[in-house]
Amino acid sequence: SVVALAGGVGGAKLAQGLAGAVDPERLSIIVNTADDFRLWGLHISPDLDTVMYTLAGIANPVTGWGIAGDSFAALDMLGRLGEDAWFRVGDQDFATHIRRTSALQAGRSLTDITAGMSTALGIEPSILPMTDSPVSTMVEPPAGTLAFQDYFVARRQQDDVLGVTFEGIDGAALTDDVTAALSQARIIVICPSNPIVSIGPILALPGVRARLAASPAVRVAVSPIVAGKALKGPADRMLTTLGHDSSATGVAALYRDLVDLFVIDSQDAAERPAIEALGMRVHVTDTIMGGLDDRERLAREVLDVTAGVEAVRP
Amino acid sequence: SVVALAGGVGGAKLAQGLAGAVDPERLSIIVNTADDFRLWGLHISPDLDTVMYTLAGIANPVTGWGIAGDSFAALDMLGRLGEDAWFRVGDQDFATHIRRTSALQAGRSLTDITAGMSTALGIEPSILPMTDSPVSTMVEPPAGTLAFQDYFVARRQQDDVLGVTFEGIDGAALTDDVTAALSQARIIVICPSNPIVSIGPILALPGVRARLAASPAVRVAVSPIVAGKALKGPADRMLTTLGHDSSATGVAALYRDLVDLFVIDSQDAAERPAIEALGMRVHVTDTIMGGLDDRERLAREVLDVTAGVEAVRP
Repeated sequence: SVVALAGGVGGAKLAQGLAGAVDPERLSIIVNTADDFRLWGLHISPDLDTVMYTLAGIANPVTGWGIAGDSFAALDMLGRLGEDAWFRVGDQDFATHIRRTSALQAGRSLTDITAGMSTALGIEPSILPMTDSPVSTMVEPPAGTLAFQDYFVARRQQDDVLGVTFEGIDGAALTDDVTAALSQARIIVICPSNPIVSIGPILALPGVRARLAASPAVRVAVSPIVAGKALKGPADRMLTTLGHDSSATGVAALYRDLVDLFVIDSQDAAERPAIEALGMRVHVTDTIMGGLDDRERLAREVLDVTAGVEAVRP
Repeated sequence: SVVALAGGVGGAKLAQGLAGAVDPERLSIIVNTADDFRLWGLHISPDLDTVMYTLAGIANPVTGWGIAGDSFAALDMLGRLGEDAWFRVGDQDFATHIRRTSALQAGRSLTDITAGMSTALGIEPSILPMTDSPVSTMVEPPAGTLAFQDYFVARRQQDDVLGVTFEGIDGAALTDDVTAALSQARIIVICPSNPIVSIGPILALPGVRARLAASPAVRVAVSPIVAGKALKGPADRMLTTLGHDSSATGVAALYRDLVDLFVIDSQDAAERPAIEALGMRVHVTDTIMGGLDDRERLAREVLDVTAGVEAVRP
């Protein structure tokens, strides 16, 4: 079985590639939920939605969020009714939030709801929320504290991030599905998502690091930083202001002792020795994913390379 | 000041006519909320919406519900996600429900929320929910009990209605706004809405009948039954199965002692003596309202006729 850890866009792309590269019934994608928030009374799960829409083949390829071709009649009307429509939700996207919120109110778990929506959208791999417990990423700019979407969307990531915390993480429980997926995994793929706010919360869940450390699976990460820059989002600036290197090596250092193999882009080939010095194997390839072909090619290559890697445990 | 009591389509039409016939700041429309229900986690107020959309000039004139030209992307997606999309909510309409629900969750009253939305939509008259307390119309077919929208929308009014109850009505409080409007009214207009399930709940609120009885206002009702038939909805069949006459006279009998003047359609002119025998004056005119011109014409005529009527109190 293959388990992927994913956040938003980059993670969703590789997850979609993996879905085409392995038996989809053997693939579980553990998705960050620390970006989840409530807006207009609705429970919004941005990363779950991005992964779900991407695997359903309906994601908006331009924006990186929402559904391709979606309309905005409800949002426009909310604006007319006096709401600040700062967070762009399309009409079809609203349906997802409405259904999720209503099912949560009815007592169903986020895991169960996500499974139901995935099936309805024809998605075969298991999309697993990292937890059913509420966790909220809080970002600390020089002054004050911001909820993640206030930083990410409302303030367009303009603030220097000097600290990140995950409210509720200490009391968050692993779900049975996540626990089972991790224990059955033969390959664990950390997708090229933001290591701080997308992969970070998953790794910060009580028990996850210990499970990764004890797993017999080969653990492989794909760098979300290429030539010093994040392909999307603020990961590069965030790494810098938090005191890390904005480089493949900087990300590898965050995953030290957690991965056996680190996949970097050809543009960063020169970083190979520095990353190997962190105690992991390195594979160099083109990691920038455009369409589905790119995604499946990279996924296949990542899986192929793991075949030659032994999971070395201390 | 003029106060109108209204339910859905017919009431909304005359209310719109009144808004054009009097200083809109002197007009309050007390609207039935016993049809309100929760669907997909959202609080839906069908009659408030119909009145609000009609007065805003955005109502769908064909269906009698919803917003003209609205799209259904969210509803289609809800269906794709597995919801039974039996209740047709358009995308703009969803915005209304989302905002209302979220404001209720934030502790605002339905009265306050409705005022805010009315202002946002450029509506000058006061649209007043009949109460901020939850009241639910329950309909009794030969077997079992149905929530109103299950009877009205899901089962398309196919059941014989042998009883109607308003759950919560005994504990429902009049709002300050409704109390003030009724006490300041010089003319009270019962709009041509279903007398059982639209006007019925308003009259059944504790204190309303007593206030109407004691009011110095001239009280006038417009018949929703023309030539034995309801212009829209099941009022005619409902009157019959509940043991009343499906006629202007049948409706007048329900309003006995509550109105001074009853306005009937020219087609029902022959009923004048029977209705006068109930102790009310009768005015005969064309009551079928098409466009805005019709609505304002009827509203003006109703108001003009009240000038010649004395409010006789026992």
